[in-house]
Formats: sequence, C-alpha cells, structure tokens
Amino acid sequence: MSQRPCALRFERGALRLLDQTRLPWEERWLILHSPGEVADAIKRLAVRGAPMIGLAGAYGLALAAKADEASVEEAYWTLLESRPTAVNLAHALDRVRAAVRAAAPGKRAAAALSEARALQAEEETASAAIADHGAQLLEGARRILTHCNTGWLAAPGRGTALGVIAEKALRGQLESVIATESRPLLQGARLTVYELNRLGIAHELIVDSAAAGLIAGGAVDAVIVGCDRVASNGDVANKVGTYPLALAARAAGVPFIVAGPTSTIDWTIASGAQIVIEQRDCAEVRLARGRELTLAGTRCRNPAFDITPAGLIDAIVTERGVARGPYAQTLAALVGAR
Amino acid sequence: MSQRPCALRFERGALRLLDQTRLPWEERWLILHSPGEVADAIKRLAVRGAPMIGLAGAYGLALAAKADEASVEEAYWTLLESRPTAVNLAHALDRVRAAVRAAAPGKRAAAALSEARALQAEEETASAAIADHGAQLLEGARRILTHCNTGWLAAPGRGTALGVIAEKALRGQLESVIATESRPLLQGARLTVYELNRLGIAHELIVDSAAAGLIAGGAVDAVIVGCDRVASNGDVANKVGTYPLALAARAAGVPFIVAGPTSTIDWTIASGAQIVIEQRDCAEVRLARGRELTLAGTRCRNPAFDITPAGLIDAIVTERGVARGPYAQTLAALVGAR
Repeated sequence: MSQRPCALRFERGALRLLDQTRLPWEERWLILHSPGEVADAIKRLAVRGAPMIGLAGAYGLALAAKADEASVEEAYWTLLESRPTAVNLAHALDRVRAAVRAAAPGKRAAAALSEARALQAEEETASAAIADHGAQLLEGARRILTHCNTGWLAAPGRGTALGVIAEKALRGQLESVIATESRPLLQGARLTVYELNRLGIAHELIVDSAAAGLIAGGAVDAVIVGCDRVASNGDVANKVGTYPLALAARAAGVPFIVAGPTSTIDWTIASGAQIVIEQRDCAEVRLARGRELTLAGTRCRNPAFDITPAGLIDAIVTERGVARGPYAQTLAALVGAR
Repeated sequence: MSQRPCALRFERGALRLLDQTRLPWEERWLILHSPGEVADAIKRLAVRGAPMIGLAGAYGLALAAKADEASVEEAYWTLLESRPTAVNLAHALDRVRAAVRAAAPGKRAAAALSEARALQAEEETASAAIADHGAQLLEGARRILTHCNTGWLAAPGRGTALGVIAEKALRGQLESVIATESRPLLQGARLTVYELNRLGIAHELIVDSAAAGLIAGGAVDAVIVGCDRVASNGDVANKVGTYPLALAARAAGVPFIVAGPTSTIDWTIASGAQIVIEQRDCAEVRLARGRELTLAGTRCRNPAFDITPAGLIDAIVTERGVARGPYAQTLAALVGAR
C-alpha cells in the first residue's frame, strides 16, 4: 500500500495534507499542527471526501490531545462543526474521544494518536475490500461514468467508487471512464482527472448536465458514485448532481451503484428526509476558479448535496460486501449484530 | 414592441447583433455586412437561440442577395451549416431563398429583405402569443425553474420560455425564478441573469446539477424551457441538461413545459432518435470564461443538446396554442392542414 499515491500522512507530530484546492496544477502539502488548522482545512475543502474528512478529524483530535489533554472536548466540537453532512467525521471523532476518555491522564495523547492510526489502517483495508467487491459486481461493465471525486484524495487507501474503477482497470475489465466536472467546485475536472491521469486510465470529461443524455444514448454500462452519508434505509446523500444521475440510469436500465465504507452509514436516521443539506456560499456558484461567471450580486442557491432515494440504487458496495434493497434489512445484516 | 429590449436589428443595410458572448459585462453591437460574417457570428454563438438563429440566417441571406443575387445559393449552404441542430435556421433560409427564386432579376435583393422582415414580424407576434398561452397554462405556478436562455436574446420579440415568465411577472403571478447556469457556455449565468435583471424579476442562480434535488425538495411549481428542435412526435432537442430536468420534474410530479414557435417543429423527423446531436469543441468543457478548469490535454465529450422524450413533457406551448400528448396528433392539429 505504501507505494500508492496518498493525500494524508501523519508524520513528525503534524498532519500533512495534499491541498486539494490547488490540484491538479500544484501539489502542495499543508503541515497542520492544531485542531483549528485541521477544521479550517476541512471547511475550505483542502481535504474532502467523507472518509478522508473523518480521518483528518481524528488526527485533528490527536493534535489537540498532544497539545493539551484538557482541550480535547472543545476541539471535538470545533472539528465536528467544520462539515455538517459527513457522518464519518462524527464517527471518527467519537472513536478518538472515547479512546482519550478511556486512557489514564498523561497517556491520552498517545491513545488518541494510536486510535487515529488504527482508524486509518481500517479505512485503508476497507477501501481495498470495496474495490474488490465492486470490481466483482461490475465485472461486465466496461464503460463507467462517475461523479465528483472518490479516489485516494477522497478516502484513505484507494478511495471508494474510483477505487472500484482502478481495480477494474487492473483486472483489464475497463474500457473508459466518463468523469463529470462536478460544479461548483470542480472536483471531477480537477481531482478525478488528476487521479485518472496518475492511474493511467483513459477518460473523458463532461459537464454535469451532459451525463443524463449520454446515459440515455447508451454511452455507459454503469454509473458508480461515492456517498457522503447513507441513511439506514439506503437513501444516499452525496455530491449535488448524484440524484439526476440515478434518475437517468434507472430510465435507461443502467446499473446505478454507490460505494462507501460502512462508516458512512448513519444508523440514527431512518431516511434521507432527515438529512439536512449543507448550503454553501453563493460565491462558489458565481465563480469558477475565481473567474466571475455572472453579474456581481447575483443571488444563488448552493446545496452541497442531494438525496438519492434507495429505490433508485441498484447496489451499495461496502467493505463488508454488496447490499441490495431493501437496504433497511441488508445494510444491517452486512454489519452484523449492532 | 419597440420600447422593449432587443438583440437584433437590420438597419442601414447591415445586420446589427448584440454580441452575446460579451454579455452581461459588455453590451457590444456587431455590425455585419455579409453572410460569411453572419455564419461566423452564429458559429461562435454571438447570436443564439433557435428562433434568433433562424432570423439572423434570413438576414444573412438578404445580405448575400444585396451584394450579388447570384451568391444566394452558396450563402444558403454556408449559413445552413453554421449550426446543425436548429431547424428554424433551415426554415428561415428556405423561406428567403424561395422568395429570391420567385422574384424577377433585379428585384431579388428587395424580395429577400422583405421576406426576412416578414419573418421577424411573424416571430415577434408568435413570441407574444407564446407568452400569453404559457402564462395562462401556468397561472397557478408561482415559482419557476428554467434552463439556458430563452428571452429576447434567444428569440425575436419577448423570447419563448422566458417570455412566459416575463408575462407571469406582469400579471403578478410570479414569486421567483431559479435559473440554471447552463454549462459549458453559461447562457443561464450570463444571459438569463442579465435578462431577468433588465426585467426586474427576482431570481436565484444554481449550478445545473442542483436542479433535480431542488425540484425533488419542492422548491418549484413548474419547469419551463425552450426548444432547439421538436420532432413531429413531440420529442424535444434542447440545451444539454434539459432531459434530466424533465426526469426530475416527472419524479416529483412537477409540470415540465416546453415553449417554442411552431417553426421549431421538424415535420421531417418522426422522433428524437433521428436528431443528430451537435458535438462541440472540447475547449468549452475544459474552460469557463477562458479559465482552465482541468489539466491541459484532457479529452472531453461536449454534446450541445440532449433529447427529452415526449412522454416526459406535460405540454408544448406554441404561438397557436398549447399541445398535450400524444403530440403526433396534437401538434399537427395545431398547425392545421399540412
């Protein structure tokens, strides 16, 4: 695993993050020493992707514990509020805080760091398992469409949906990838294109709204995306624009697959209706890479996510295997006795 | 009508076009003296919108006839090939060429110009009628979502879909408009926002892929779009991204309405399957307003249009009235004995 590209390392007492806001043009590493710096990096999307946000948060709490064991509680909330939709963040922070609480005074910093490292190892293992399960599921699909960014920039290890795509490429079962640009922040145009280039996988970029027509026209054999949060009934919150892809795939009879670790499942919510959609700054819509696209002062709506109902999802690929609807039963069965 | 904003005038022997590539930041008029200049303006989208392209083509042919009556045939083909999907262009060019052929030598230039002016008058009347019919149809819909640009920049007179929206505003039946940015060329962000500002209509801009989630979430009462070409069965070719809006509207039970003059109907094709989708330059996807969004050399697909099946369209509003499915019968009935 160590030879693979990566975007997050904890080394010499600091969290090192490949600044995703500068990719693909510049590979600049951030060196973060405090939970506040980590929260800022999460907020401004220097680190993103639900599993990667969780891991960054875990190390952020470890940094707090290292500086002052008593500051962990406050840091927990600072980090938790940095990105509201990613449930992985809450999971990761809960784990590290519990490890801190269980440790004796003076050993808490070590316990926090150890727990964050354990989380990273688990996520990397999960990512490899997702790639395996997904590649098996999509064995016959040679032309894949994906949305936003879900490779090693978005999740520890190989990523989620893009990990599946990479595994298919390794198996010689991939012909081509269509990547959506993923406005407003262009994670597809900037990050997925960067990752596919690094992986040597043939790809074509499209504007987001071209996907539905291409799917209807028979251009792809499957659509696979990641997920920011999965409700216990299988409804999925993911990057805005995921839901219309699911509608188009269903209308065309093309499989629509979601990939993510089980840490992305939020067992506390029954359905997507309970997920509050993060509304981001209007400037993201008015600009593209800093360039004005419309008149100054134009009002916008900028939901970061949309909800894809479980009924449109043909399978959810996790590290524990592949679930199919009805997800309320199958997801719970996958993770076993809870 | 003369006090209304307009984007195309034939004056003092030249075609004057408001250069839409520079809006909303700069109001620069192009003064065109030859069919070649008109074809170039159409190709680079300085003039756009199916009805407006048709009218520009008609005046382009008049310019050819004025310079040299014998050059009309060649100019016809130059203009026809400038934008392949817009059937209005073929209709308009056919009309002017027929007028030229019917006129005596020496009177052909006058006949061509007279026919182009007649076409403009007809289109302006049609636009007013579309606005009327559409506003009546959508009387109860106070929050409207629209795509691309369909106001007076896109069609002579008041436009098509945006003409309906403007008429609803005049009638006090409009609360707000959500406009999609319409990547790659941002006709929504640049042109629709400009038009709505000029009309004093409250609006919010969104990225294209946010529309489906907003529709599902109950944010709009109706979706109304224009059309670049309508097959005789009611399938509609329109700006890429129209089809996913129709899918989302149907899934949410929100009316999905298409507005356009009957000159947009292509009676020679039975269905949308026969419409060849224009593929435009990859640079449009790689850039936004000249700013690089991805790595240089990235390959793209850039379909300009997609096809919305008639079955997803609740009504087609024309200058002759409102058609509902099955459109093969109702559209033909609207235009009478053909």
